[in-house]
Formats: sequence, structure tokens, C-alpha cells
Amino acid sequence: MKKGFSLRTDLALETAECLAEGARGGIEVENEDFDDNIKVSTVKITDKQGKAQTGKAMGTYITLESPYMKENEVAKHEEIIRILSGKLSELLKIDRDSVILVVGLGNWNVTPDALGPKVVSRVLVTRHIASEVPEDIDENVRSVAAVSPGVMGITGIETGEIIMGIAEKIKPDAVIAIDALAARKASRINSTIQIADTGVCPGSGVGNRRMELSRKTLGVPVIAVGVPTVVDAATLVSDTLDTILEELIEQSTKSTALYQLLAGMTGDDKYDLICSILNPYENNLFVTPKEVDAVIDRLSGIIANALNIALHPGISKEDINKYM
Amino acid sequence: MKKGFSLRTDLALETAECLAEGARGGIEVENEDFDDNIKVSTVKITDKQGKAQTGKAMGTYITLESPYMKENEVAKHEEIIRILSGKLSELLKIDRDSVILVVGLGNWNVTPDALGPKVVSRVLVTRHIASEVPEDIDENVRSVAAVSPGVMGITGIETGEIIMGIAEKIKPDAVIAIDALAARKASRINSTIQIADTGVCPGSGVGNRRMELSRKTLGVPVIAVGVPTVVDAATLVSDTLDTILEELIEQSTKSTALYQLLAGMTGDDKYDLICSILNPYENNLFVTPKEVDAVIDRLSGIIANALNIALHPGISKEDINKYM
Amino acid sequence: MKKGFSLRTDLALETAECLAEGARGGIEVENEDFDDNIKVSTVKITDKQGKAQTGKAMGTYITLESPYMKENEVAKHEEIIRILSGKLSELLKIDRDSVILVVGLGNWNVTPDALGPKVVSRVLVTRHIASEVPEDIDENVRSVAAVSPGVMGITGIETGEIIMGIAEKIKPDAVIAIDALAARKASRINSTIQIADTGVCPGSGVGNRRMELSRKTLGVPVIAVGVPTVVDAATLVSDTLDTILEELIEQSTKSTALYQLLAGMTGDDKYDLICSILNPYENNLFVTPKEVDAVIDRLSGIIANALNIALHPGISKEDINKYM
Amino acid sequence: MKKGFSLRTDLALETAECLAEGARGGIEVENEDFDDNIKVSTVKITDKQGKAQTGKAMGTYITLESPYMKENEVAKHEEIIRILSGKLSELLKIDRDSVILVVGLGNWNVTPDALGPKVVSRVLVTRHIASEVPEDIDENVRSVAAVSPGVMGITGIETGEIIMGIAEKIKPDAVIAIDALAARKASRINSTIQIADTGVCPGSGVGNRRMELSRKTLGVPVIAVGVPTVVDAATLVSDTLDTILEELIEQSTKSTALYQLLAGMTGDDKYDLICSILNPYENNLFVTPKEVDAVIDRLSGIIANALNIALHPGISKEDINKYM
Repeated sequence: MKKGFSLRTDLALETAECLAEGARGGIEVENEDFDDNIKVSTVKITDKQGKAQTGKAMGTYITLESPYMKENEVAKHEEIIRILSGKLSELLKIDRDSVILVVGLGNWNVTPDALGPKVVSRVLVTRHIASEVPEDIDENVRSVAAVSPGVMGITGIETGEIIMGIAEKIKPDAVIAIDALAARKASRINSTIQIADTGVCPGSGVGNRRMELSRKTLGVPVIAVGVPTVVDAATLVSDTLDTILEELIEQSTKSTALYQLLAGMTGDDKYDLICSILNPYENNLFVTPKEVDAVIDRLSGIIANALNIALHPGISKEDINKYM
Repeated sequence: MKKGFSLRTDLALETAECLAEGARGGIEVENEDFDDNIKVSTVKITDKQGKAQTGKAMGTYITLESPYMKENEVAKHEEIIRILSGKLSELLKIDRDSVILVVGLGNWNVTPDALGPKVVSRVLVTRHIASEVPEDIDENVRSVAAVSPGVMGITGIETGEIIMGIAEKIKPDAVIAIDALAARKASRINSTIQIADTGVCPGSGVGNRRMELSRKTLGVPVIAVGVPTVVDAATLVSDTLDTILEELIEQSTKSTALYQLLAGMTGDDKYDLICSILNPYENNLFVTPKEVDAVIDRLSGIIANALNIALHPGISKEDINKYM
Repeated sequence: MKKGFSLRTDLALETAECLAEGARGGIEVENEDFDDNIKVSTVKITDKQGKAQTGKAMGTYITLESPYMKENEVAKHEEIIRILSGKLSELLKIDRDSVILVVGLGNWNVTPDALGPKVVSRVLVTRHIASEVPEDIDENVRSVAAVSPGVMGITGIETGEIIMGIAEKIKPDAVIAIDALAARKASRINSTIQIADTGVCPGSGVGNRRMELSRKTLGVPVIAVGVPTVVDAATLVSDTLDTILEELIEQSTKSTALYQLLAGMTGDDKYDLICSILNPYENNLFVTPKEVDAVIDRLSGIIANALNIALHPGISKEDINKYM
Repeated sequence: MKKGFSLRTDLALETAECLAEGARGGIEVENEDFDDNIKVSTVKITDKQGKAQTGKAMGTYITLESPYMKENEVAKHEEIIRILSGKLSELLKIDRDSVILVVGLGNWNVTPDALGPKVVSRVLVTRHIASEVPEDIDENVRSVAAVSPGVMGITGIETGEIIMGIAEKIKPDAVIAIDALAARKASRINSTIQIADTGVCPGSGVGNRRMELSRKTLGVPVIAVGVPTVVDAATLVSDTLDTILEELIEQSTKSTALYQLLAGMTGDDKYDLICSILNPYENNLFVTPKEVDAVIDRLSGIIANALNIALHPGISKEDINKYM
């Protein structure tokens, strides 16, 4: 059964999983298992065919999955931070004297969309002191700036315009954009971190941010870091329906009028039908766990720590605490 | 098709709607339509049969529904406040010198569960000044106290124990308990206010509060005021499934093996199946609109204003602003 | 007794008040009294002499003072909003199709410094919808964008650089910068609004923002709107000391050794002495009223409403509520 | 020069410091110096004379002072937590099966008064699970409950009444009350923790809480834990004035009319004079450092951790993280 791309997911891994074996041309998937229930998958979209199949930009998408991310498990978080900072360093090809701009996308006032601004508030920012303590900085820390521009509904300005304006002033060598994403499976909410060297694609995320942040628009590499914090309610219902119906269809031995009916129903038809049931909220209704505030705090701590280690390799966590 | 009561709703109106015509003994439903898309329904559960059918305590449940509640429509809010304060006055049989304790149930730190504490923060509290300006107070305002005790996971104490302890000290003539509820239909989220003279039943609400606040436990009338701020994700999926399957069943002319299968599946079976798909969140996954923070603010303003008018009939809204 | 300019005030009115009669060349002061304890003063610094005497840029500074600003007096606030929006319209020489950029300076996380970001969060932003509903917008509202860039300690970037970068992208016809200020007199905290056509001068405000936002740096008029939300503790102590000592000196008939000692002490000596007593906080210790959170909320509401009326003259307050 | 007790300090140590040598009957002071700039002083008020001299209840007051408390110095915080939990264990004479009620006094919405509620939000609460996992709990953790009742202006109820009501229900063996205090010296703000076995005295603290929480009112030991988070502005000005005038008086050789004037001025006269200068805020104007939000967070973490270790001696910090 063909699935329409109207089902929302921002995870390249989920998109790849949905494709039939034969449809995976131009897509490479590789898995690593770490101790302790931490899993890393790398999806590479290598050509136009892969791009067409997935609807995602060509590039490398690394996904860390662990149920511990959303729990208060400090020791496991240390391990996740270690792995994540290593993967970030691989994607970020920067020099010792590079200037990095970290961008927190999303809206402070909407809890599941506040991941980006929360990470930014914990990033060790050094660009403004770089000129004052040069010899000290040169050895230990990179020049890092960080902004949370807000969303277009609040500023009246496309986020991409704001970032381009700032980038033209401070001329970073790389941009890292943090954003909350939408996943397809409830089990991935707040337990997955995706990093990619493709920039942030238009139309992604919990909100609606339309202008791409990428090497094409900013002229420098853009690393995207995202966590799925919600599942679109219609997507969740639709997928649940598929799972159940598939089971029923099997049991009804494919001989009934029902099978005919279902076989003739596309993903888009189903999604529309479900949206009409979710009316009047439609695309604005999200599934989220109750403890989302505390979990977003934990996740932003994990990502900020991994960034601090990847960006300032010469200094220890204790040093970072002192500078903050 | 029999439906199990495991599907979560705290609205007596939704429970009544789910019952077959023949099963409505001991249940009276009455509707009023106001201008401007504001609807009031009164459900009376009058005897043990009604209680058994609905799983709700005997008493009167008044439901206001309006899509304007969640919008920034100040003029419509004034109208809703007027109707709500009138209905509150009907249920609250209190004297001029009664002492009222307003209780905000729920958890400040979980947005959809913060309705109660937010209302409490806007209630005009007067008990502490009642003795200082007696003649002034006697004529214009009642003696009102208000607490937000927090949830058991934070305090280690059953909320009922805290309220009983406080009630024994201040001896209120009536208690008004505000709580966030769960609805069954997405369309009712944040657009429905239920008030009832039955107290707050155990096991209700977004959280898990087990000890009843009612005339039985507190010795005085307990008015419950609630707003459904979430739909349990499993309930939403299950209901959507029912709607779609019923349609399919009709079309498949009830002759297939599928029908047999579905007919043999109880509500509980279905709910469990869906929960296993929503794993690992299960009962902790809620459907909520994206703009929930702003909407809960609006709703708490509406309820607090209606309470202030119902409790202090002699003073104007401007006066209330001055006292706050 | 000559006073050093090390005493911190951002109010041109306070600076003018401190000057001896003879030293007011190049400075014009004009007062208007409105009903109800609302006072408006206009200080014009007209030439280089005025600039030298005051340490302030040449231009017009309008100060509204009213004790009602910090109280919950809705009716008085309406009056203040009316006067303030009128004065803003006078300073803002803009056309119907001008694009305006509102900038909220200061730090969200430090209550007395959060005025700017709080105002921005309540400004009616329209630039992003201007192209979609042109005929509707043209008649009723101007194109307004708004940003809260954060402070340099958080971003690593001079606020002026961020605003210049954004301004180059969206090319506003005027910029309005909102900021929390420091006053000299405790009685002015949260009861004074200063607007000026001079831009925001370096080194002003509660924080330390060094790069000027002005016609010189941005190429368009910059209107500054500020409220003193704190008094520097050392300034307060120093001024109190002066008041008391002056009285004592008079009584001691200027004949003592004490007089000699005091006469030989400059403002800077005294300020340094006091700072050493306030050690280890020194310049970081501020005097602020206890209820500062609620008061900043009220003040940001007053300023945002006045801006909304001044910027969108064709639409009513009810319309604004709908758009927000 | 006699000093009036109208000058506000809640620290027994500061009161003792102000007394002349000869006036210290009934007061014992003992100092311990720890490494790393951490100082512990113990003041014992042993009889009625000591009580009269200090205006403080008889009992033991232990004060920890360290400039590191307000800094982001994780390693020093570990040391402070270790010392503080030891001192708490000395004062708290409880058994393994004791029930402890932790009370967070103060107002969530006023940053310098939010210490108590913030500590409560981080205390490991176990009373509600004690009955479910008895054998596990018995060995490792005590039964702890925790409430933040709010302030009288918000509840309309004396905080003491609320705590008495709750205590009658849950029958704790000891109560620990956390509160923000006022200090006299700016240098002590946020760098001092006082613990006492005397309960919380009426009229203390940043707010106005009138009913005593003590063995007398609650029937069980009440340990008070407090941090000075503000200095009353009038007290600060008055003390600064004293310091400067004393120096001037010395130099003016006590022969002038000024000396006569000052000698005749009591502490109360001076305080009133200063309050009139601080008008219209008077007693409501506090001196507080700019970074107060972050510092209160750090202090509440230190106190909550020390409480968790003192109350649950059998479990590690990692375990505490898991339970939270």
C-alpha cells in the first residue's frame, strides 16, 4: 500500500523505514549499537533518486535513539552527550579559529517548540570575550555566538531573513540550527536526536518556518540538530488505523468488499478523513506526553552539553560551568 | 455495540450522549441555546440507575459550550462570564456572610493541568481582610480564601487530606474546586466548562487524585468547575477507529468474517490494543492544541471573573481590579 | 557642590534638574499638567553646550510621570496610553506605508530588565501578513516587525550588530527601541516613561549595551522608549547622604572641620567610598520594589497599547485583540 | 551609639555582632573555619537575657557563610552541601521512621521570596509511596512530605493555619521551614544560610507572615532554614550613613554642634528620615543583585540537596535523581 508523504515526519530514518525494499535507491542506512540501550543510525541520501523517494535533501542524517533521554538518568546522559558530541564533531568540519553561530529555532512560549531557545540559553557563548582574552581563548575555546530569533508570528519577519542579516554581520564559518521536530511514531517522542549536514528544510518542524537555512542561503555549512517532541495527532491516528486494519485484512482473508474499499483508499484520503474528525483543530492538534516541560529541559541540557564539548574541545565541563 | 467505560471522559454530557436511548433511566438532559454560539446543557443524574448507567455521582452537571472560549474574543468572553456566574450562583446556595474556600487542583508545572492554580491566582481573596474592614466587606464582598495545594507527586500528601486539614481550620460554608478535565471529543478541548454540585470524583482529571472532595468528606457543599483541556490519545484513536469501522461495516453488509471479529471485540480489548501501539507512553500521552498556554490563560480568566462576580455580587469589575 | 556624572540616571529630566540655573544653556524644559496626577515634561537639548552640560545627545526627550502607572488602575492607564500614543505620534514622523521595526532591548531572565522583550511580545506585528491581505492592511494597519535580540552576554553579539543586520534585510523607515532604564530618585521607579528621538545612547540602561542604535548607525530615525525600573544602590545611598549632610551642614553653620572635609570631597570620591561599602556587589546591586514582576507587566501593557494605537491608527483596541 | 531594633535583620549572627561586648550575656558565639572560604558560626541564645538583648527566640542558630554559594562553582557547592547536611542532622533529632514535613514559605511570583517554594520543588518526597514499597523505603528513605502554601495575600489564610491544618492530618515528627530572609549587610546577600531549632518567628522574612511555626504551635520540633536574599533599602542607607558619619565625627573631634545633633538622634529617628526619602516605596524597597533569579536557583539546589541527604541518609545522590 503506497503511503502519501502528507504524513508528517521530520526524521529521515522514519522516511527510510517507510520505503519498500526496492525503493531505496540512493539511500544508505547504517546502524551502530552502543551499550545501554543507545542506538545510532546513519542515513545517507546520496543522489536525486534518494531525494525524490524521501522528500529530504541530499546529505547525512545521524539519529541517536535512547529511551533514557527523557528520563532523569544522569549517568546515561553523560554517555549520550559523549556520543552526540563525537557525531557533531564529525559533521562539523571546522578549524580552531572558526566562528560558529548557534541558532535556536522555535517559540519560547510553546513548550514542545521551545527546545531551540532552551539549548541556546545553555550554550557557552564566547564571541564577545574573544577579543578581550585572546591568548586564553585561542587555546581553549572557539568563538561562539547564539541567537533565538523567535517565530514569524511574533516577529513579522521570516526567521531566515533574521539569520541571514545576522550572519552577514558576524560572518560565521558554520551555523548550527536547533529545532523541535515532529515524529511519526509516539515511541520516538523525546527519545531521538537527529543531526544532519543538510541545513533546515522549509516547512519542517512543529511551527511553520518557510525559508531554508542551508549552505545555499547562508553560504556556509549548516548543521541541523532536532528532537521530535510531538506527533501530529492525525498522523498518529492514521498509522494506528493502518496497523489495525492490516491485521484485520489478513484475518478476513482478503476476500471481502472491505478489502476493496481499503485498497482503493490512498494515504491522503485517509489523512483528510481523520482531520475532519479532529476538527476544529486539524493540523494544530499534537500528541505530547504530560511531563513535556521537564523532558524538554533534560533534552536541551543534553544537546547544549554536547555542543559545548564539540565546540570547545580544550575545556572541561567544570570550566564551562565557570564561564556560564 | 457496547462501549466500555474505560474510555476516558469527565463530562457527564459526553457520558449521557454515549448511552442508547433506552438506557437513559435516571438521567435528565435539558438544553438552552444562547445567542452567539453559546450552548448550555444541564444533565441531572437523579437516582441509582442513572448513577450506574453513567458511572457519575448523583447531582446536577451544567455544561457551557462555546468555540469562543479558546479565542481572543473579549466581547464574547463577557457574555460567557455573565452566563457562567449566573449558573454558579444557582448551584452555590450561600448566604451573604458565608465563607468560601476555592481550591485549584492540578499541577502548575504541566500546562494543561495548570487551570486550577491559574484560576486561584486570579480569584479575589478577602478572608484575611474581612476582620479589618468589616462594615465595608459585609456589604460588598464575601469572605473568600483560595489555595492551590499541588499534586500528590509533589507534596507526598493526598490533596484531599490537605484540603480537609485546611477546611477544619477555616470552616468554610462551601468549597469550589477547579480542575482540568479530560474530554472524549477533540472538538470539546478548551471550549467547554462543566460545573457540578457533586464534588470532585475520585480518579478524575488529567492527573490522578484519588480522594474525593465532596459533602461526604468535607461536610459542606462542594461545587466542581472543570474544563477539558486534553483528550487521552488512546481514547481519540479508539473513537476515530469506531467511527471509521462503523462506516466500513455498514458498507460491507455485515456478512464478513471481519464483522464477527469486530463484534467480538469489547471496548476494553480495543483500548488495550491501542495502548500497546502508543507504548511506551500509554496513559500518559495526551492530545492537546499547540497554543495551549495562551488558551489556558484565557479560560482561567473567564472562570476567575465568573467566580469573582458570583462570590462578590455587590462589587464591580473595576473594584475587583483595585482590590487585586 | 559640583556633582560628578558618575551618578547613574538615564532620564534627561533628572539630568536637567541637577544642573544649576546658570548651567542650562542649550537646554529647554517645558511642563504640561494633565488631570489625575499625570505630568508631562519636554526637555530639548538644542546645541553642543546643552549636550556637554547633560552628557545626553541633542534631541527631544518627553517624560510622562504618574504614580498610577505602577498601580492596577485600568481607567488611569487608558488615559496614560492616550497621552503616550499622542506623544509617540508626534516624534514618529512616518507615512501610512512606512515599515516600522520595534526592538525590545534587555534580558528576559532578569525581571527589571525584561521590559523591552515584554513590550515586544504584546506589539501587534503585521509585516508578515502585509503582502497577503494588502487592501485590508493598507487602510487600517502599518507594516510592523518586532524583535527581542537578547543581551550580549547571552548572544555573544553586540545588540547593535544584530539590529543592523536585521534592518539591512527588512529596511524599516523607523526603529522604536524599548529599554529598561536606571533612575536617580526612588520615587521615579516604574512611574516614569521617557520617549526620545535621539536613539539609544551607548552605556545606558540596566545592562551594558555599547553600540548606539541611532540615525547615525541605522540610517533611519530611532525613537527610544524607556522606563526606569531600578535605582543603582550606590546612587541612592549617595543622594540620601547628600540630602542629609546638606541639612547638617546648614545647621552646623559652616564653621567646622567637617565642612572643610565635605567641601573637599567630590561626587566621585563619595561614589567610590559607597561602592566599597556595597562590596562585593558594587555596580551590580540595584534597588527595586518587591512587586516588580507585576509592575513590569502593567508597564509593558501600557507601552504596547500606546505603540499599537500610534502605529495602527485605523484600527480599534478590539480589532487589535482579534489580530493578536 | 545605641542602635534601634527597627533595623531589619533576620540573622542572629548579625544581631549578636551589633551588641556591645558587655551586652552579650545569655549569648554564646562559636566559629569554625573550613577550607575554601566556607565559615560556620553557631550562636546560642541560652536565657531570657539573651532573648531580650537580641529580640530572637532561645535556641541554636547555625550560620554558614561562603561567597561561593552565589557563584556557579559546582565543586564548592558539594562541600557546602556536605557541611550543611551535617549541621541539619545535628539539629534534627529524628528516628528512622519519623515523618518529616518540609514547608516552603514565601511567594513563587516574587523572585527573592521564592526560595522556599523552589527548595520544596526539589525535595525528594516519599510519604505517598511509603506504604506501597515499605521494606525498600524502611531501609533507605524517610517518609517526607512537602508543601508550599503560598502567602496570605494570595490565599486569604494565615500560613500558620494552613500548616497546622495539614500537620494535624499527617502528624509529622518534625517540620522544616524554608524561608527567604532579610540581612543587614549587602555582603551577606545570597552568601549565607542560617539554620535554627527555634522555628520561624513572627514578622520575619521578606514578606509578612505573622503566625509562628514552632514547637509551641505545632507540637513538634521546627527547624528553620533561611537565606538572606535582600537587604531592606532603608537599612542599607542607614548603615552606610553610620559608617561615614562615625568617621567624620572622629575627625571633627567631637566638638561641634553636629556632634550634638547626631548624638541626639536615635536609630528610629534616622530610619524614619530615610524612609521618607525612599517614599513612596518605604518598606517595600529592597536591594538585590541583578542576577537574583539564577542565584536563587543555585541556593535552592544547595539546600534541597542538603535536605535530601540529611533526610534520606541511606540513599545516594544518583538514587535521588532516579526517584525525582
